[in-house]
Amino acid sequence: MSDPFFHPVSALELPRFAGVPTFMRLPLVQHGNARFDDVQVGLIGVPWDSGTTNRPGPRHGPRQLRDASTLIRAQHSISGMRPFETVNCADLGDVGPNPTDIMDSMERITGFYDQTLAAGIMPLTAGGDHLTSLPVLRSLAKVHGPMGMVHFDSHTDLNDTYFGGTKFTHGTPFRRAVEEGLLDPKRIVQIGIRGTMAGTEDRDFAEANGIRMILIEEFHARGVEDVMAEAREIAGTGKTYVSYDIDFIDPTFAPGTGTPEVGGPNSYQAIQVCRELAGLNVVGADMVEVSPPFDTSGGTAFLGVSVMFEILCVMAGQLGG
Amino acid sequence: MSDPFFHPVSALELPRFAGVPTFMRLPLVQHGNARFDDVQVGLIGVPWDSGTTNRPGPRHGPRQLRDASTLIRAQHSISGMRPFETVNCADLGDVGPNPTDIMDSMERITGFYDQTLAAGIMPLTAGGDHLTSLPVLRSLAKVHGPMGMVHFDSHTDLNDTYFGGTKFTHGTPFRRAVEEGLLDPKRIVQIGIRGTMAGTEDRDFAEANGIRMILIEEFHARGVEDVMAEAREIAGTGKTYVSYDIDFIDPTFAPGTGTPEVGGPNSYQAIQVCRELAGLNVVGADMVEVSPPFDTSGGTAFLGVSVMFEILCVMAGQLGG
Amino acid sequence: MSDPFFHPVSALELPRFAGVPTFMRLPLVQHGNARFDDVQVGLIGVPWDSGTTNRPGPRHGPRQLRDASTLIRAQHSISGMRPFETVNCADLGDVGPNPTDIMDSMERITGFYDQTLAAGIMPLTAGGDHLTSLPVLRSLAKVHGPMGMVHFDSHTDLNDTYFGGTKFTHGTPFRRAVEEGLLDPKRIVQIGIRGTMAGTEDRDFAEANGIRMILIEEFHARGVEDVMAEAREIAGTGKTYVSYDIDFIDPTFAPGTGTPEVGGPNSYQAIQVCRELAGLNVVGADMVEVSPPFDTSGGTAFLGVSVMFEILCVMAGQLGG
Amino acid sequence: MSDPFFHPVSALELPRFAGVPTFMRLPLVQHGNARFDDVQVGLIGVPWDSGTTNRPGPRHGPRQLRDASTLIRAQHSISGMRPFETVNCADLGDVGPNPTDIMDSMERITGFYDQTLAAGIMPLTAGGDHLTSLPVLRSLAKVHGPMGMVHFDSHTDLNDTYFGGTKFTHGTPFRRAVEEGLLDPKRIVQIGIRGTMAGTEDRDFAEANGIRMILIEEFHARGVEDVMAEAREIAGTGKTYVSYDIDFIDPTFAPGTGTPEVGGPNSYQAIQVCRELAGLNVVGADMVEVSPPFDTSGGTAFLGVSVMFEILCVMAGQLGG
Amino acid sequence: MSDPFFHPVSALELPRFAGVPTFMRLPLVQHGNARFDDVQVGLIGVPWDSGTTNRPGPRHGPRQLRDASTLIRAQHSISGMRPFETVNCADLGDVGPNPTDIMDSMERITGFYDQTLAAGIMPLTAGGDHLTSLPVLRSLAKVHGPMGMVHFDSHTDLNDTYFGGTKFTHGTPFRRAVEEGLLDPKRIVQIGIRGTMAGTEDRDFAEANGIRMILIEEFHARGVEDVMAEAREIAGTGKTYVSYDIDFIDPTFAPGTGTPEVGGPNSYQAIQVCRELAGLNVVGADMVEVSPPFDTSGGTAFLGVSVMFEILCVMAGQLGG
Amino acid sequence: MSDPFFHPVSALELPRFAGVPTFMRLPLVQHGNARFDDVQVGLIGVPWDSGTTNRPGPRHGPRQLRDASTLIRAQHSISGMRPFETVNCADLGDVGPNPTDIMDSMERITGFYDQTLAAGIMPLTAGGDHLTSLPVLRSLAKVHGPMGMVHFDSHTDLNDTYFGGTKFTHGTPFRRAVEEGLLDPKRIVQIGIRGTMAGTEDRDFAEANGIRMILIEEFHARGVEDVMAEAREIAGTGKTYVSYDIDFIDPTFAPGTGTPEVGGPNSYQAIQVCRELAGLNVVGADMVEVSPPFDTSGGTAFLGVSVMFEILCVMAGQLGG
Repeated sequence: MSDPFFHPVSALELPRFAGVPTFMRLPLVQHGNARFDDVQVGLIGVPWDSGTTNRPGPRHGPRQLRDASTLIRAQHSISGMRPFETVNCADLGDVGPNPTDIMDSMERITGFYDQTLAAGIMPLTAGGDHLTSLPVLRSLAKVHGPMGMVHFDSHTDLNDTYFGGTKFTHGTPFRRAVEEGLLDPKRIVQIGIRGTMAGTEDRDFAEANGIRMILIEEFHARGVEDVMAEAREIAGTGKTYVSYDIDFIDPTFAPGTGTPEVGGPNSYQAIQVCRELAGLNVVGADMVEVSPPFDTSGGTAFLGVSVMFEILCVMAGQLGG
Repeated sequence: MSDPFFHPVSALELPRFAGVPTFMRLPLVQHGNARFDDVQVGLIGVPWDSGTTNRPGPRHGPRQLRDASTLIRAQHSISGMRPFETVNCADLGDVGPNPTDIMDSMERITGFYDQTLAAGIMPLTAGGDHLTSLPVLRSLAKVHGPMGMVHFDSHTDLNDTYFGGTKFTHGTPFRRAVEEGLLDPKRIVQIGIRGTMAGTEDRDFAEANGIRMILIEEFHARGVEDVMAEAREIAGTGKTYVSYDIDFIDPTFAPGTGTPEVGGPNSYQAIQVCRELAGLNVVGADMVEVSPPFDTSGGTAFLGVSVMFEILCVMAGQLGG
Repeated sequence: MSDPFFHPVSALELPRFAGVPTFMRLPLVQHGNARFDDVQVGLIGVPWDSGTTNRPGPRHGPRQLRDASTLIRAQHSISGMRPFETVNCADLGDVGPNPTDIMDSMERITGFYDQTLAAGIMPLTAGGDHLTSLPVLRSLAKVHGPMGMVHFDSHTDLNDTYFGGTKFTHGTPFRRAVEEGLLDPKRIVQIGIRGTMAGTEDRDFAEANGIRMILIEEFHARGVEDVMAEAREIAGTGKTYVSYDIDFIDPTFAPGTGTPEVGGPNSYQAIQVCRELAGLNVVGADMVEVSPPFDTSGGTAFLGVSVMFEILCVMAGQLGG
Repeated sequence: MSDPFFHPVSALELPRFAGVPTFMRLPLVQHGNARFDDVQVGLIGVPWDSGTTNRPGPRHGPRQLRDASTLIRAQHSISGMRPFETVNCADLGDVGPNPTDIMDSMERITGFYDQTLAAGIMPLTAGGDHLTSLPVLRSLAKVHGPMGMVHFDSHTDLNDTYFGGTKFTHGTPFRRAVEEGLLDPKRIVQIGIRGTMAGTEDRDFAEANGIRMILIEEFHARGVEDVMAEAREIAGTGKTYVSYDIDFIDPTFAPGTGTPEVGGPNSYQAIQVCRELAGLNVVGADMVEVSPPFDTSGGTAFLGVSVMFEILCVMAGQLGG
Repeated sequence: MSDPFFHPVSALELPRFAGVPTFMRLPLVQHGNARFDDVQVGLIGVPWDSGTTNRPGPRHGPRQLRDASTLIRAQHSISGMRPFETVNCADLGDVGPNPTDIMDSMERITGFYDQTLAAGIMPLTAGGDHLTSLPVLRSLAKVHGPMGMVHFDSHTDLNDTYFGGTKFTHGTPFRRAVEEGLLDPKRIVQIGIRGTMAGTEDRDFAEANGIRMILIEEFHARGVEDVMAEAREIAGTGKTYVSYDIDFIDPTFAPGTGTPEVGGPNSYQAIQVCRELAGLNVVGADMVEVSPPFDTSGGTAFLGVSVMFEILCVMAGQLGG
Repeated sequence: MSDPFFHPVSALELPRFAGVPTFMRLPLVQHGNARFDDVQVGLIGVPWDSGTTNRPGPRHGPRQLRDASTLIRAQHSISGMRPFETVNCADLGDVGPNPTDIMDSMERITGFYDQTLAAGIMPLTAGGDHLTSLPVLRSLAKVHGPMGMVHFDSHTDLNDTYFGGTKFTHGTPFRRAVEEGLLDPKRIVQIGIRGTMAGTEDRDFAEANGIRMILIEEFHARGVEDVMAEAREIAGTGKTYVSYDIDFIDPTFAPGTGTPEVGGPNSYQAIQVCRELAGLNVVGADMVEVSPPFDTSGGTAFLGVSVMFEILCVMAGQLGG
């Protein structure tokens, strides 16, 4: 049972359109706050998109996700899980990046997560572009060692370099993470891969390192349950990270992103896959690439936070059982 | 065969973008009009959203629905039904609500429908938020007694009170309707229920009263035909109301609404369920919660009137056979 | 000199797109907070639009205004005033209205301001529709007695009733305030009045009570300085309230509002008039009728908070001199 | 005094967002209606843009103008004129064009106006692109002979041909009208001309025929009153047509148009020029080139109908004095 | 192997947001260019919508499609096909239509294609409304004789006339093409037909001439593979044209079109059907009815060019094997 | 007289909505093109926004500016200047930046301009954020030595560092340019400065170095002609650069930008100031900070290219006299 301090503001007392928007209307508990060490799951914003090679915007993601998250209520419709009453959840605020310096930003992010992990908090991140995952994984690996990963995305993000040698972009984080030993490639599964390709460099790397890619065609043919059963097998019982790029979902359902690829899962499949994560040994997760300039309506962000709520229920089930 | 007076304006004579937009380009026949008593199916706007607890807008629904309805043609693609030639259809205009007084508005709405029913007209309503259904049902129950209901929605709308005791909101209409004896709970089926929950008060009420809820998971697993066969069984041969909340449909297909829940039916399923209503003893229907400020493109409204056309064909088949 | 606790978050440390958005990045100090009594100027959101007779939306105003206010920096370009270093400013959060009950909401608002005034805090309100001003004035009048008012608006808001007797709408607040003795009509000046009129009821009331109306034609002919000199004379040295309806400004500059009237002041005049308030004995102010659904770009909100910053500088000059 | 039959629907009885939208909420009185001959000023939609050489859209103008016109109230703020109580005004509906045949459409339009003029109705037209004016003038000239014209526009619309010989486009109507003897070039004044030019063909024609062009630079330098005094002098006491292209106004104030030119009048000047038309012998007027796809917000249309209301007040003053 | 001259600009050298946007970043090789005769597949824009009977816009299609096409990369995800390295592809520019003269425009289009075919180039067209297909087919039939056609659409486009006798609209091209002997009706298959109908004239024509229509209900029931197997059988081994109206796809996935019909295929099915075209004897194809004013986000255009890339891969497989 | 090769495509032959959009429909003449050395004025895109400290987007500027520029015709309305017939103008394409490396990008930009200047071409740049000006000035200074500058902006862009030491951002270019000796501070005038300030660091630098700042209040008080007369005096007869930040203009007129400040010049003043540049010894100019995500309508871009056309006419007058 959670401490009532960590309960969201009730919509029957303060309507959902009212109040300063924190993630899911949870208390804002930043580093230095007296209750920081009592948090069990921390929702963290990383407003950063310096790794974006084409259309920027995810730096605005956390704010729009917080806004949309005010529509999230207390209980899961199917499982009945009430995560906010099961574990102490809080909004830990945003990491402050340096939008004009990638290396400086990555250090700031890793530092923020080091502090968070030191307090025993499990992080649920709202990016930010996909390069966000790399500095987060650097921090997690210090505590957990090389992790497995369930990765929802239309892209592999396993490329080597861009623009004549640039190694840190939103198309390269997981190649770096494998090279740096943060992830165990044999325990990585990438689901939803699709779209036109520049070349095969990334797929060659996946094959050479034993990373399992499930293309969208296979996903549609086998269905969510079958695919996710295999995903759980690949990740196994070890420490596992969940990385969810919003462009995994079909761009009609999630237009607010910078590198869309048509033909993806619908919104029901988008949340179904999360429910199938139950049973994994999750040590952290992220929702990345939500880009508000490409969906000012907030529909993409609402789908993003709906996914985050599903993942949070998995975390609460794991921590609070 | 209908009276040619009630035929829509032909698009070959006046293009669809031309003319003052009435519902489906039908004649506007308001209370007091000489032809009022000849109408068989009346399309009525209820531009009202005072029951909305979060994001307002459905008061603008009827106007946008009328605009989108100018794209609707004369014949159903599958059944071949030509409803406007089968029964006398007309746009009865809008009920004038009092946007600053809920009780006054409900009386005005019930009064408008009393007049309509007195003329033997079957009402097909364009809301308005979901509280609209309550004053409409009050009028219908005077004529038809307690009715069954096929209810498409992502929410049960069976809550008791909001904000410390408010009993009339768009989250409470059907609890009131059951309490007031307007609906027979054992003949109510709610289809598409999903989304995060504040608590279980509404589901407890449903269970205690014998209301059948078909959650979206069950809907997706069983498919439209199977679910609708059960729905027809529940509603049975008695007088039945059809209430269609646009948020039944996945918000990607129908973003123009104030309380979206992800993971719903697509646009094909949205119209399929209507086709499966044939055979019921329908006494009225509504399309509610279309909120233009959240979809200025009119796409939601077009889907809304496409659903209304399907329901109209069911009504025409029932009345005009 | 203000307490550093009350300084906004620096944009050089945390970029403006980062962080949970409070008004002008000030600390959130709600009722019950240990530092509440140290606040000198409190920015308060009133997310409420139940008084709206036509197109709703201002209930979403405070959130969008907070978001836009993250672009506001520390110093005034002309006067050099640094308000956050001059007086203790804070975001006091939102009043929680009851969106389905006008009378209940007005009591909640008045109660919130009673608490605020009891702590000696000067309120700067972000509405909310214009009915918001009435419950705020009720609280202020308890402390200050009948006040003068400088009122920027395209409408007089001096009507008597709507829809057959409704007395509390956004078109009636100042008639009620005069009737209730909250405002001294002889010390009221209304600037920018324009637009088509339903009738002359409101203007007759103004004339009968000695309220000075400056129509937009006179405003354009005389210019800001001359008009505002007269305004200061009318308000005099007594306690004065400033009410700023965003629809005072031309709707091209401020499209995000529900009752626009063309031909108004431009954005430069919109802030100039505020600078001319210096010297008045201001006891509170509001910025109302910002309606996000009609300007999702946030441009209207940014102009709104730019006006709020100008008023804040006037308050800081008055309190901190 | 007008017949109450022709009064708009009251907003105190039916809120402005309710009801089927006719122009200014007037009764719809189409050809064949029993009250047709009693109309004095007829508001007519011409949903047609086949003359558009670049970006289409004005065919949707009348519907959006009607929608926006529901915000127009009964009385002019300055003159006190209540046009709907002074003369019998009605919405005459739309002319049905043939969107795939220019010549056929022009005949349909002229025919509609012939019927209208035969009933003694003064037409106030909502276009449509600017080619609309030509078939209207053809009808008016049958009754009134060659007319003078006060023409507000950023373009002269005096070109000869486009695309290798096409003579009927929205860039050529007034050259045709002069050639056909519908307009007296010496009594034409064009106000607001600006923007980059393809060549000088149109200006050469103006000069050769004695048409007076007042470029925007002269307009800004001299001001509305001075320019309009000259305009009244040019048009003189003879029959005069008023043609108002929405692109006369700066595109920031009126973005909903297909051929914008920067640097134009603001919204206040846009209505001021209409007030200065009083005293002319007006026989008809139009508001053209409102293109909804370029301003779905309706702001342009609201400015358009605000201008139409000003012109209507001039007509009512002339007819009802 | 293609000539490197015809390779697209690399995104690693010039980011995708940079550069003048040609189709898929290919070289622009217009008539008269020295390399024109070396082109094997030519991408051609036909910015024309004079055949549109309701809501215009497709004249802006080619520009938006080019813009979106800068997101297309070099290789197909499933087949591995690299079309730009397999055959010489180029952007041939736009046909210049006469927007005010349908007959003139059709001649210009046919002339452009005559030149293109004379150089042995296979055309892949980006419309334009669906009337575009007619002048293209006129040119193709000169070379190939009567062709079969696989036609993806929600409408049959087999109507006879509109508005009292107009024979050339976007609702009539294939009736004209059959009448003119450009298409062999027995080798035509129309897939995805749905939506309300004006009457049965078009379906009667189809039946009388042996055109096979696969309604959307049949499509959803049988699935892509089964339907397309039949389509390939119908088209057979003869010369076949592929016409793809974007309104084949559900309007939620492709809102940027003028005559939407709900209940269509999703984006995955939209590209799947193209993959099933392999094996046909394709002589040309088009993507029509993309209407940017109804989707300024570019999402529809991106789906449109994703379809074009799939068709291009089929062409490259056929030509380059 | 210019070479006809460099004339824009005629809109009478190819409508403005047709064709691949180059700047002002000029020929695309990239480095390596045989006609490159014949160009006199080169329009260059720099799609780059890595210097942006808050809201990104200007990397998309050049493409949207090109699109909007297709509305620009051949002749200036007042001066009669036909720049494309006076000097050889061409679109030189875009510099390819490295969006993830600021230093690399600046070198690429300077290199591109070195090549351009070597061919004797005067550059007219379409940015990009304001950091763009720095690498351009580095190239120009190699040829021209320290230049004067007329700088239209709401910000001084004279700050020292951001985020703990970052020296290259869009808020620092002109401090760097002065430090590097690229600009002569005594010949710099900054016009339109306004908005809230972080501090006085930038204004202190201006004062210390003799840079003249004309705040917006002074601009509005004195008017365009008087202010520009002083500007010409300050810049004098030496080589002068013109830098035009779109946020100089009021954000209502130019909402498509990332750091708006209310109260600026209107669109007429925006072009008037350019006309007053005639007589200066201009060596290059830029239009920066147009950010399409904040104005997808293209209105800002159209105003931006209207300003570019005015500057181009000044250049043509200077070079072609």
